[in-house]
Amino acid sequence: MSSMQGKESLPESGNLTLGAVAEQHDLRLVSGAADMPIHGVCPLDAGQPGQLAYAAGHEQSRALAGTTAGAVIVPEPLVQQCPVATLVATHPQLAFARIAALFEYQPRDPVGIHATAVVHADARLGHAVSVGANAVIGAGCEIGAGTSIGANAVLGDNVRIGDHGRIGANATIHYNVRIGARVRVGSAAVIGGRGFGLVHTGSGWEEIPQLGTVIMGDDVEVGASTTVDRGALADTVIGDHVRIDNQIQIGHNCHIGARTVIAGAAGIAGSVTIGNDCLVGGGVGIGDHVTIVDNVVITAASQVPSDITEAGVWSSTFRVMPAGQWRRLLARFRRLGQMDRRLRQLEKTT
Amino acid sequence: MSSMQGKESLPESGNLTLGAVAEQHDLRLVSGAADMPIHGVCPLDAGQPGQLAYAAGHEQSRALAGTTAGAVIVPEPLVQQCPVATLVATHPQLAFARIAALFEYQPRDPVGIHATAVVHADARLGHAVSVGANAVIGAGCEIGAGTSIGANAVLGDNVRIGDHGRIGANATIHYNVRIGARVRVGSAAVIGGRGFGLVHTGSGWEEIPQLGTVIMGDDVEVGASTTVDRGALADTVIGDHVRIDNQIQIGHNCHIGARTVIAGAAGIAGSVTIGNDCLVGGGVGIGDHVTIVDNVVITAASQVPSDITEAGVWSSTFRVMPAGQWRRLLARFRRLGQMDRRLRQLEKTT
Amino acid sequence: MSSMQGKESLPESGNLTLGAVAEQHDLRLVSGAADMPIHGVCPLDAGQPGQLAYAAGHEQSRALAGTTAGAVIVPEPLVQQCPVATLVATHPQLAFARIAALFEYQPRDPVGIHATAVVHADARLGHAVSVGANAVIGAGCEIGAGTSIGANAVLGDNVRIGDHGRIGANATIHYNVRIGARVRVGSAAVIGGRGFGLVHTGSGWEEIPQLGTVIMGDDVEVGASTTVDRGALADTVIGDHVRIDNQIQIGHNCHIGARTVIAGAAGIAGSVTIGNDCLVGGGVGIGDHVTIVDNVVITAASQVPSDITEAGVWSSTFRVMPAGQWRRLLARFRRLGQMDRRLRQLEKTT
Repeated sequence: MSSMQGKESLPESGNLTLGAVAEQHDLRLVSGAADMPIHGVCPLDAGQPGQLAYAAGHEQSRALAGTTAGAVIVPEPLVQQCPVATLVATHPQLAFARIAALFEYQPRDPVGIHATAVVHADARLGHAVSVGANAVIGAGCEIGAGTSIGANAVLGDNVRIGDHGRIGANATIHYNVRIGARVRVGSAAVIGGRGFGLVHTGSGWEEIPQLGTVIMGDDVEVGASTTVDRGALADTVIGDHVRIDNQIQIGHNCHIGARTVIAGAAGIAGSVTIGNDCLVGGGVGIGDHVTIVDNVVITAASQVPSDITEAGVWSSTFRVMPAGQWRRLLARFRRLGQMDRRLRQLEKTT
Repeated sequence: MSSMQGKESLPESGNLTLGAVAEQHDLRLVSGAADMPIHGVCPLDAGQPGQLAYAAGHEQSRALAGTTAGAVIVPEPLVQQCPVATLVATHPQLAFARIAALFEYQPRDPVGIHATAVVHADARLGHAVSVGANAVIGAGCEIGAGTSIGANAVLGDNVRIGDHGRIGANATIHYNVRIGARVRVGSAAVIGGRGFGLVHTGSGWEEIPQLGTVIMGDDVEVGASTTVDRGALADTVIGDHVRIDNQIQIGHNCHIGARTVIAGAAGIAGSVTIGNDCLVGGGVGIGDHVTIVDNVVITAASQVPSDITEAGVWSSTFRVMPAGQWRRLLARFRRLGQMDRRLRQLEKTT
Repeated sequence: MSSMQGKESLPESGNLTLGAVAEQHDLRLVSGAADMPIHGVCPLDAGQPGQLAYAAGHEQSRALAGTTAGAVIVPEPLVQQCPVATLVATHPQLAFARIAALFEYQPRDPVGIHATAVVHADARLGHAVSVGANAVIGAGCEIGAGTSIGANAVLGDNVRIGDHGRIGANATIHYNVRIGARVRVGSAAVIGGRGFGLVHTGSGWEEIPQLGTVIMGDDVEVGASTTVDRGALADTVIGDHVRIDNQIQIGHNCHIGARTVIAGAAGIAGSVTIGNDCLVGGGVGIGDHVTIVDNVVITAASQVPSDITEAGVWSSTFRVMPAGQWRRLLARFRRLGQMDRRLRQLEKTT
């Protein structure tokens, strides 16, 4: 159970009631008292009185029947099955997410610009920007209103960040990177590091200068310890509403289309173009210069060495089995050529 | 050869002798002078006089015969084969590890709380806590006795860390995370970052608040640049004695059982439960909501999209072969359907 | 298009002309005015007047024919096809890379040793070393002339770095690490963290001390968020001219041979030896104690659980296909044993 739903840190959720929740989020209160206090959110199967849960659909009927939450947001078809106070929503998960946000942790101290932060004299900071302890902000930076820069984060020169963004602690945003509004960058992420460009001189490698930058749209999320390289000649471009999980590598000159979601530990090489509304699974690898159209789903750990030209679900993932069984299959796999020859032999003789 | 076994940095190992080593670690000295000075440890095949090595078993007989170390810790059955001073142990590697610890580097300056560290006024620090330069410690933190916080590390509000822990340089521990005793967190690791939770609004993505935290037991090791996300509604839980290597992603709401070991670059999605005493190989991927029982071994780079309900070794890893050979096998793999049809045809006609 | 080719930040490229470029880089000017100003570089297919592009070979004939760049560097055989001002080079990409370097971003303020940096009194810094804001440099460090240490980077005690290196913001270099000349370490990289060495005590895990360090040659590049662990007894060794991309894990005691290139998100376990002049693809996994000879190419995402003893291209990578088709192939793959038995049955009966 969450350990952070204590009162002190939850200013916005002060005296919330079931009725107020219903009104603010346009939900129908079909059972339960409007003045029931709501002081937290919870999973459907681990609730407590005074906490609010949600059920998305019939697959949760059993959990709903046994819930110990104080109230549950349900879709219309589950109303009859809800044993506790009931709110009805067309999209229960979305309503729940918005209500849960009221219970998110708020830091005790508004940070402002911390005395130890190093902000260049000509950087321009909007209204209510917060800069954490020991953060470093370079020359020519422009930070939009309400954006917070985490402790020990580093912004190089001429970085532009829109309004209401959050840059995590220990994150690094290199020179000239442009970031839109409401963008969240995780801790230890690196945006705009050098692309990996090499030319062989005959006797060794020489670096190809990386003159582009990273252009990120609005409402983007970048996870912790994710790296997005700057472009070589052109820029690396991340579209609006793109969501990128942790531990992901995105190479130079990539273009990621709007609303595309990339799950953890994926590796995307250079000059890759991914369309809009794609889902890239965890651990997926995408090769240099690959182009992927809109509305493609790639299952976890699949490998994409060449273009995907049709929308739909794509896969190349094996799944574990007991190692002995796997070893036998592997041995047979390696003898596929021999099997083919035996087949041909039989086809000749019959 | 290690470049850090110089005397100045090894206070504890000052005047170590073979006899003292034997006595302190309960080893039997069967050959060699008790007053032989021991001033370092070494690999069996690259030793020098005055250095101590170990041999684990018969597979190292040849290396043992040719060793140039000053003394070797061996198991009973290898005593006769040891050409130099000999200590006998039931578990030579464990004895060696403990002796080698005497030769680990000690920083020249005890840090204390560095003048440049930013420690919130109401944070509570135990006896002999060390806080590195420019580290940032938030409101309400509690740090146990003897724990060290690396330079430029960031602890959010209300973080609790037990005794004798070590938080690496540039690591980030987010608000409310609870860490047990004797836990080591690597540099640039991020503990308690937001989980990756999204809900589609119809026109785009909205974030699901991540209200849980990370609860870590005692004696846990977390490698450099590893990320462990905070829970969504419940918490992410890492059991006692869990060992997590570098570059690993652990998603929100995961439960990792006691003594489980996870090797580098593994990716573990959200709400995964792994039992006790498991070994997860490097680069393994585990999908959302997967449950794995105790005592499971998953070989490197295998993919686990669904539950593992039996203990044992599990695998789905191919291994490289010359690319031409691989290409032919791949082509045959893609024609498995055709082979099956040809087989059926033959079965009909014979 | 690059957003950083503005004049203010490009001191070295002040009044560059086509003729000067030709002279400085030993190129033959075969068409175009020697006094044509060159004020930027561009891709062949997205150029503007006054910008310089290059064409590597015949595969770019069409792009060359339509180029809008002001001038193009071409190899001899393409001279006739170049519609704009033309420079001839034996290695156009290399010449271009060197010219493009003139247009790389230069920070506005030379940093020197920033007032907020914490540099230990006995660290020795060469001529023109630059240390960013809040960087921390430990006791006994030696930093070569012209090397820059990024903001918030941390160097432990006794780190040695050669001349003209660049250590990224938020990077961590642990105690005793030795780095050669002209080495670039990316942001958030961790060099010399503890290796992952464990011994089972019977009831749990105990750490094996990691007494070695990391020794890195000259002209090495290490990407952002990459981790290179220190050795256990011996050292981890990275050869000259090795190029390591982002998000890579290199375990303790590895030896990486000269000029070897490792692409993003690769995972290299402990005690791996890779020869000279190898190319390790993105996402490749290499197991413990594997040895790989010189001149090996491993294709992206391939798995290497055992030694590679012959030069050449090695592979074990599948590629995505539509998920339905993949599912059918997987099912057939799992029935390979059954197919084999059916074949044998047929062989008996005919």
